[in-house]
Amino acid sequence: MSRSIRLAVIPGDGIGQEVVAQGLKVLTAVLPQDVKLETKEYDLGARRWHATGETLPDAELESLKQHDAILLGAIGDPSVPSGVLERGLLLKLRFAFDHFVNLRPSKLFPNTSTPLAGRPDIDFVVVREGTEGPYTGNGGSLRTGTPAEVATEVSVNTAYGVERVVRDAFERANARPRKKLTLVHKNNVLVYAGHMWKNIFDKVGQEYPEVTTDYLHVDAATIFFVTQPERFDVIVTDNLFGDILTDLAAAVTGGIGLAASGNINPTGEFPSMFEPVHGSAPDIAGTGKADPTATILSVALLLRHLGYEAEAARIETAVATDLEARDGTARSTDEIGDALAARVAG
Amino acid sequence: MSRSIRLAVIPGDGIGQEVVAQGLKVLTAVLPQDVKLETKEYDLGARRWHATGETLPDAELESLKQHDAILLGAIGDPSVPSGVLERGLLLKLRFAFDHFVNLRPSKLFPNTSTPLAGRPDIDFVVVREGTEGPYTGNGGSLRTGTPAEVATEVSVNTAYGVERVVRDAFERANARPRKKLTLVHKNNVLVYAGHMWKNIFDKVGQEYPEVTTDYLHVDAATIFFVTQPERFDVIVTDNLFGDILTDLAAAVTGGIGLAASGNINPTGEFPSMFEPVHGSAPDIAGTGKADPTATILSVALLLRHLGYEAEAARIETAVATDLEARDGTARSTDEIGDALAARVAG
Ligand SMILES: CC(C)[C@H](C(=O)O)[C@@H](O)C(=O)O
Ligand SMILES: CC(C)[C@H](C(=O)O)[C@@H](O)C(=O)O
Repeated sequence: MSRSIRLAVIPGDGIGQEVVAQGLKVLTAVLPQDVKLETKEYDLGARRWHATGETLPDAELESLKQHDAILLGAIGDPSVPSGVLERGLLLKLRFAFDHFVNLRPSKLFPNTSTPLAGRPDIDFVVVREGTEGPYTGNGGSLRTGTPAEVATEVSVNTAYGVERVVRDAFERANARPRKKLTLVHKNNVLVYAGHMWKNIFDKVGQEYPEVTTDYLHVDAATIFFVTQPERFDVIVTDNLFGDILTDLAAAVTGGIGLAASGNINPTGEFPSMFEPVHGSAPDIAGTGKADPTATILSVALLLRHLGYEAEAARIETAVATDLEARDGTARSTDEIGDALAARVAG
Repeated sequence: MSRSIRLAVIPGDGIGQEVVAQGLKVLTAVLPQDVKLETKEYDLGARRWHATGETLPDAELESLKQHDAILLGAIGDPSVPSGVLERGLLLKLRFAFDHFVNLRPSKLFPNTSTPLAGRPDIDFVVVREGTEGPYTGNGGSLRTGTPAEVATEVSVNTAYGVERVVRDAFERANARPRKKLTLVHKNNVLVYAGHMWKNIFDKVGQEYPEVTTDYLHVDAATIFFVTQPERFDVIVTDNLFGDILTDLAAAVTGGIGLAASGNINPTGEFPSMFEPVHGSAPDIAGTGKADPTATILSVALLLRHLGYEAEAARIETAVATDLEARDGTARSTDEIGDALAARVAG
């Protein structure tokens, strides 16, 4: 039997290049001998945009599609107007490849520093909707730049889009020991979208009698993230609330240097894309200070998605063991990658 | 000389009644002899809605308008469908009385419990826009309840509305020792509204050369709220981001039992409204467990707004001294109110 993984790699901007290199190092180390790894690198991001004005040409999108998965570093640079690369590249990929499950696990690993007193036992997963909500680019600006300007942003939500992500979240909750699912929205103000989310959540929930459910407004959810994060198991929420909550989750579980994510197309029609939650951090690019762990944990999510469960678990165990063994000495991007590659190969 | 305050009081639901009673107790104790306090109580909230189907009749709105200020307890009850009282009463008041500055100070008082390790020195103010953004009620639902439903929420932002609140925030920052103002938005995704906010912020900023400014995406802001809250002085942001951030701010500064707010109409055309950030907490209503401090601190904001600076400061000092003197014994709603009334009278 011969197996293969065709992996598209988009290092992107800032520290993207550095952390992706470590992700690939660990991926190579963990894969069984018989698995052939083919990687193709794509030059997308700020450099490309400055050189050609392109963010994501159709031919590139077509070529990316011919892969089993995508590994992405980070997108964004202060030299590019805010929104150009985010909308034209990162969100374009999430939308074009119908990444409706944006999966973001949060776990407080041993020996990591959380800003929370008392080190609560945090281990939850946020299932963030990835293709709708306020992220669709609907809206506009009238009389731009004048004192009479009106700017709108339209959050678009469909029963089709909400039901599929809610169902995915129930499946994930049902497969976990605690079997608990929390819906986060703001249905006392955003009544149209909020009530639709809540109604669909309640309806789908009837098919999962073993899953305990609850509902929280997004503002209240942020309170519990810092006062009682151990109460969460699986959270399902919309695109914008998920964006906000997962940065907060990363902060309380030891920082965005550790937060992994998967932009998943569960049907398999398009390649799923894995990336650290952190940004391109141009201030530390090239200094060797970037922590590649978030990217390496994203590689674990990638492997799990492609069916390599044992290898995914090996990476996660390696990260936990490695963090536990830390003695406080600062390590470079490369050194962390080397240490983890050695552990998973072992 | 004879002075007077005509105060409208809306106790509302749940613990609203209990905390408002303590707020009035402290207000009465702190006011100079020559100030005549006239209060009028309004029966609005869940009880009224169940009895009559009304949330806020026009006649009541007209009558409320004849006051110098409004003190509100809390709105919301599980027996009423989510959104009915929030939109029909609380938000209706904020919009009808053009409360475009939703002022929410956050301070870590001595001897209060924060979930953050290391007790950072937190003392900032959020200026939340109060009359626009995703709170306008624009949007709708098509084919409601069917698998083909589409629900939208429209965030409406005007240069008129953004400029006035941004200017107010610059004024506040300019009057504080650190003179620092942070704009929080999400202009890499919500490009229409986000760019308008940023452009207006930059333009108005030119009139305040002494104010240091910066910009943060809302997701990144939540990280700093828990890892580096001492970096903030004044924050200006939109209605929804402000809602989320101020609950998180309350959580890290000792809980929503202490978080005060003012819904301010700076022009004085309409009465401003003061309320604790917390909700109606129906689970503890009537038990005497509610902390009235947030309401009492809201009374301080009310007094400051009406020009009673010395009295406002007396309440704030009393709260700080009272918290410092706590010995850990649980106190009832009444006992806390009595203690603070005694301190401000002294
Ligand atoms: C860079 C930005 C467009 C992106 C988002 O808002 O989704 C990021 O914050 C994230 O969470 O992946
Ligand atoms: C009750 C609700 C409508 C309200 C809001 O979202 O503004 C509350 O959360 C607040 O912050 O005052």
